[in-house]
Amino acid sequence: MLLKKLFNPKSVAIVGASTHEGKIGYILVENLIKYKYKGKIFPINPKAKEILGLKVYPSLKEVPESVDLAIIAVKPQIVLDTIKLCGQKGIDTAVVISAGFKEAGPEGARLEESLKKLAKENGVRVLGPNCVGLIDTSARLNASFATGMPEKGQIGFFSQSGAMCIAILDWALGEKVGFSKFISLGNKADISEIDMLIALGEDENTKVILGYLEGVEHGTTFIQVAQEVSKKKPVVLIKAGVTSAGAKAVSSHTGSLAGSESAYQAAFKQSGVIRARTVVDLFNYGFALATQPLPKGPRLAILTNSGGPGIVAADACDQSLLQLARLKSETIEQLRSFLPPMASFFNPIDILGDAHVERYEKALDVLVKDDNVDAILVLLTPTATIEVEETAKVVVKYAKKAAKPVLCSFMGKMEVAKGVKYLKKHGIPNYLCPEDAVNTLEKMWQRSHWLSQPAPEYPQIQADKSHVRYLLEMAKRQGQFHLSERDAKEILKAYGFKLPQTQLARTKEEAAEAAKKIGFPVALKIVSPDISHKTDIGGVILNLDTPQAVKEAFTEIMLRVRDKRPRAAIYGVSVQEMIQGAKETIVGFSRDPQFGPLLMFGMGGIYVEILKDVTFRIAPVSKKEAMEMVREVKAYALLRGVRGEPPADVAALVNGLLALSQLSLDFPEIVEAEINPLLVKPAGQGCVAVDARLSIKKE
Amino acid sequence: MLLKKLFNPKSVAIVGASTHEGKIGYILVENLIKYKYKGKIFPINPKAKEILGLKVYPSLKEVPESVDLAIIAVKPQIVLDTIKLCGQKGIDTAVVISAGFKEAGPEGARLEESLKKLAKENGVRVLGPNCVGLIDTSARLNASFATGMPEKGQIGFFSQSGAMCIAILDWALGEKVGFSKFISLGNKADISEIDMLIALGEDENTKVILGYLEGVEHGTTFIQVAQEVSKKKPVVLIKAGVTSAGAKAVSSHTGSLAGSESAYQAAFKQSGVIRARTVVDLFNYGFALATQPLPKGPRLAILTNSGGPGIVAADACDQSLLQLARLKSETIEQLRSFLPPMASFFNPIDILGDAHVERYEKALDVLVKDDNVDAILVLLTPTATIEVEETAKVVVKYAKKAAKPVLCSFMGKMEVAKGVKYLKKHGIPNYLCPEDAVNTLEKMWQRSHWLSQPAPEYPQIQADKSHVRYLLEMAKRQGQFHLSERDAKEILKAYGFKLPQTQLARTKEEAAEAAKKIGFPVALKIVSPDISHKTDIGGVILNLDTPQAVKEAFTEIMLRVRDKRPRAAIYGVSVQEMIQGAKETIVGFSRDPQFGPLLMFGMGGIYVEILKDVTFRIAPVSKKEAMEMVREVKAYALLRGVRGEPPADVAALVNGLLALSQLSLDFPEIVEAEINPLLVKPAGQGCVAVDARLSIKKE
Repeated sequence: MLLKKLFNPKSVAIVGASTHEGKIGYILVENLIKYKYKGKIFPINPKAKEILGLKVYPSLKEVPESVDLAIIAVKPQIVLDTIKLCGQKGIDTAVVISAGFKEAGPEGARLEESLKKLAKENGVRVLGPNCVGLIDTSARLNASFATGMPEKGQIGFFSQSGAMCIAILDWALGEKVGFSKFISLGNKADISEIDMLIALGEDENTKVILGYLEGVEHGTTFIQVAQEVSKKKPVVLIKAGVTSAGAKAVSSHTGSLAGSESAYQAAFKQSGVIRARTVVDLFNYGFALATQPLPKGPRLAILTNSGGPGIVAADACDQSLLQLARLKSETIEQLRSFLPPMASFFNPIDILGDAHVERYEKALDVLVKDDNVDAILVLLTPTATIEVEETAKVVVKYAKKAAKPVLCSFMGKMEVAKGVKYLKKHGIPNYLCPEDAVNTLEKMWQRSHWLSQPAPEYPQIQADKSHVRYLLEMAKRQGQFHLSERDAKEILKAYGFKLPQTQLARTKEEAAEAAKKIGFPVALKIVSPDISHKTDIGGVILNLDTPQAVKEAFTEIMLRVRDKRPRAAIYGVSVQEMIQGAKETIVGFSRDPQFGPLLMFGMGGIYVEILKDVTFRIAPVSKKEAMEMVREVKAYALLRGVRGEPPADVAALVNGLLALSQLSLDFPEIVEAEINPLLVKPAGQGCVAVDARLSIKKE
Repeated sequence: MLLKKLFNPKSVAIVGASTHEGKIGYILVENLIKYKYKGKIFPINPKAKEILGLKVYPSLKEVPESVDLAIIAVKPQIVLDTIKLCGQKGIDTAVVISAGFKEAGPEGARLEESLKKLAKENGVRVLGPNCVGLIDTSARLNASFATGMPEKGQIGFFSQSGAMCIAILDWALGEKVGFSKFISLGNKADISEIDMLIALGEDENTKVILGYLEGVEHGTTFIQVAQEVSKKKPVVLIKAGVTSAGAKAVSSHTGSLAGSESAYQAAFKQSGVIRARTVVDLFNYGFALATQPLPKGPRLAILTNSGGPGIVAADACDQSLLQLARLKSETIEQLRSFLPPMASFFNPIDILGDAHVERYEKALDVLVKDDNVDAILVLLTPTATIEVEETAKVVVKYAKKAAKPVLCSFMGKMEVAKGVKYLKKHGIPNYLCPEDAVNTLEKMWQRSHWLSQPAPEYPQIQADKSHVRYLLEMAKRQGQFHLSERDAKEILKAYGFKLPQTQLARTKEEAAEAAKKIGFPVALKIVSPDISHKTDIGGVILNLDTPQAVKEAFTEIMLRVRDKRPRAAIYGVSVQEMIQGAKETIVGFSRDPQFGPLLMFGMGGIYVEILKDVTFRIAPVSKKEAMEMVREVKAYALLRGVRGEPPADVAALVNGLLALSQLSLDFPEIVEAEINPLLVKPAGQGCVAVDARLSIKKE
């Protein structure tokens, strides 16, 4: 197991152990003793003889035995020396509690760089710095300065924020939430969320991995690892700092719409990571995923002793990806046989306010057996007749038998307390509001669905790479980092995109001639290396029907361009075939600093510009993912065909996305590419890249 | 005060009082005694002499003194006799606990109708039937069979679901939430949510009104009353049965009619009612609104002792209607003067993990005085150095001084418990997650904004009503409930709508002639009383440029119509002016069974049909509300003008909405009206109703 000595060390040294009660160096020793750490403890302090009954050593060097883990809580400068000492003594794992590094400004950041370097040179893996430490409940190891020790449990938790660790631990102690491992990552100088995913993924005591993140550094590795680990066990993460993405000056829609939030959203989706909105959601999902089987489908049965909460749960179900199960007719008949006639035999099944435990039991017996039911939600309000604890026992009994998840919302507090305690103790999640239960079940169903999907396959697209390489090389040599439209289109052509028929015209007569050859109607567009937003300066005129109209448009464009961009070099005007009866879409990619190539799709024009109706994935994408992108936008109906229009060639559009995905991977120097519009013709007729922009990295 | 004797009776009779411990008739007497009801108690039971030390009377008639309130818990049939007896004895208020009415099927529904009638005839106001009863903490009246008595507080709560009452009361007892009044409405045979809004609105012990509703019966009155009451105190409601699935559960439960979600949304918005999603939200909002002043603006300052929670709160702020306050430079300077250099002096203000209470105190002192700060959120994680209770005291101290709301998120459980208790006791709302605090503040800001708006004014639109009356009368006589397009347009014209130039043509030659007069391009549309969806059968051809094209289109339409609707009576084809350079919108109204005329607005075509980008209000609407409707749709940018297009004539569009609003009120027999499209020309040029449909009630 990765980081074995971090979690299960045979011996621990506390460098910076203190004799002063309340100091961090004291609490660290105290926590090890108090929570009955099984291994050996060596406090290190040059000035002390004894701490809490333990012999103190003046230095790591003086410790007569081998040490598995060093916990370091000394001044930042001394941390560096200590890491060297660790290397000398063969200690390959350390927890740096000390603050004063990256979080403390430029000086600290320099220290942290040195720490990283020294750790690598000396072969020491480092957790922290600036962290609270870690807890492993199986090893009875509390190597932290947090108050309290959580119960043993199946949740592995890590957090980038120490404050979140402290708050969550305190909350968990109150709520009696159990953990397998509990890790404060601190500044992540070395050990990161990726290591944690691997380690917790391998850990047999951990059934669910929960985490709080503010950022990810190695996006591509993160996705790979998260994908692997998610297949084995659920990973639920909070990603904070959603809106802190720095607005970069970007010239395309793809770039401006692709904030880091879009990238995280895509990364989590593609790697099967479940996203939680709040800490409460995180643990709601975590506990249910640790204790209950996944639903095999989206069909939920609601069992309730009162109408109101049943309605509330049905509302929540309707607004989720779940469905209200249609019970089998046998089930309904059976329910009818023992429930009073005023009960509701349909879903939600209302067994009425005077229900005793028997009605719950009989109804559960029937619902557990109904194959049309994938998950069961048991609602209870503390009416006069209800037997809360007995009902909890019955729920536990049938949940154990059932090969489907059973969640509860026993509503209230005082009257339901004992029942709720019993439920939790026996691994049945309970929620104050039915909405939270439904929301949790929805996430469980999403995971179940994700697991059932075959692994993504990334098709290889035929492309004339050497030609693209040549074009990019030429552009670089000429210092042209925004490629000309012609070059951009040629690159796309090399990746299988069709282009509209086009001819360059230098005079109005040439333009009219070209139009006749191509066939009316045509569009005229200015061709200039200095103009990238042609429409904005009136450099584009569409729908020209006659030679005369073409001539007039040519003159008009020239006038406008001379007026607005008098210094621009003008190559001429391009005469283009107008594609008829096609749907306007935008496809493109930009590069996210963490996750790399971020592919975008949206319906063209206002849908992207005004309604921001776009979707993202991180390349490479599979055919299935590309198809999902297309279906995900709200205006997808336009492609299916509305008001009797024929459906568009979605297959060709998907191929286009796959080609762009491949282009983004083949040529990392392309920082942005956008086809706007990519016109999608009716099914079977393909799509045409009408306008394209492409930028390469400045070196 | 309305229903004074319901809440503060001098004497109470319990009809159906029981000697059997645990029975509802026993618990009712027990609760009155146990919670020290101040008035007289008269148990009624023909078979008993004494219950819990009280003398029992065989009948209401035998009670020697006057009775203010009768609580009735006998069989449904006997309830009816009891109501008569109440009338005879001059008891004008009764609570019917008994079930077996509307909720129990057709027989029960008939009983409930009789109950309504008898109550009216005998001058008795009735709460229930099928309810849990009510609690008034000032009168120390627990006239319910619920377990426990909540503390005195400032929240008035009512619920249509008895189960919700029971669950919430139980939860409130555990959480120590105080109430002024707590009412279970039951089947609402007589006393409804409207009475409750009035009564709680008048009640000086109630600062905030909370409620759980499944349906509203008298929508127009509800809006009027809610509007009035909302001005005095906050009204926060849960409306369950939101979705089709939930709605199904509603009708099988209480039999109440579920209005459409759009109508409720509009009704709540127009009457200043704050909507809560869950019970937890309901009380989150309720407690804050009862205890804290409203923010004067949306600018939030976040004070925190740790980075993570600060980021989480800032994220939530960014996703809300609130803004992160930009602190005054004096404030930043002052913060700099006492905070350590590593602290963050900008918002969120991070006073660091080693903060003691002093830093909180000094920072609060500065923030309270900063005019750029409209609201303060204090975050605390239980770090080693923190003094939780002292910090709570400081927060309370400064919150009292501040003329702005102060909310807290002391995160955790065990370590923060005492501090949280102190906060709550002193009226400072505290939330486990910062997100919930931000969400609550957003609602407070929305209320503050709503209150600052002037009362809506409903302009009178000039209209030729007598002509409309004539047209509707003629249509009714001819049994034509879907009006012809011509009549529909004439009605719109009478309300000031402009119509496109139009001429009826019976032959292709007439059509070509008409087109020449109107000016090209034109549209051709079939005119038939039997065809209402003209486009679907190919009865419309647009954009005809030449006389020849018009002739051909005429023939084509005739062929199509004869093919698809061989029996339709054909009046001819209407030749219409094509409006150029205008924006397509849809306006209309339908009638909601609860709330009446429901005005709709959306951008035309796909925006309404596919993207459902529409907005609703209940008529009448003010000019401001009509403007809000227009601005609310996501595609509003289209009207403002994109890509260099001129802005559309929004003023004319708003006038159109006002005219439709007026039409819907002037002629209640019009059940539906729709102008699709209403073309909005560039600013100053008005809008044109191109096609219209209008239906009237069948009598």
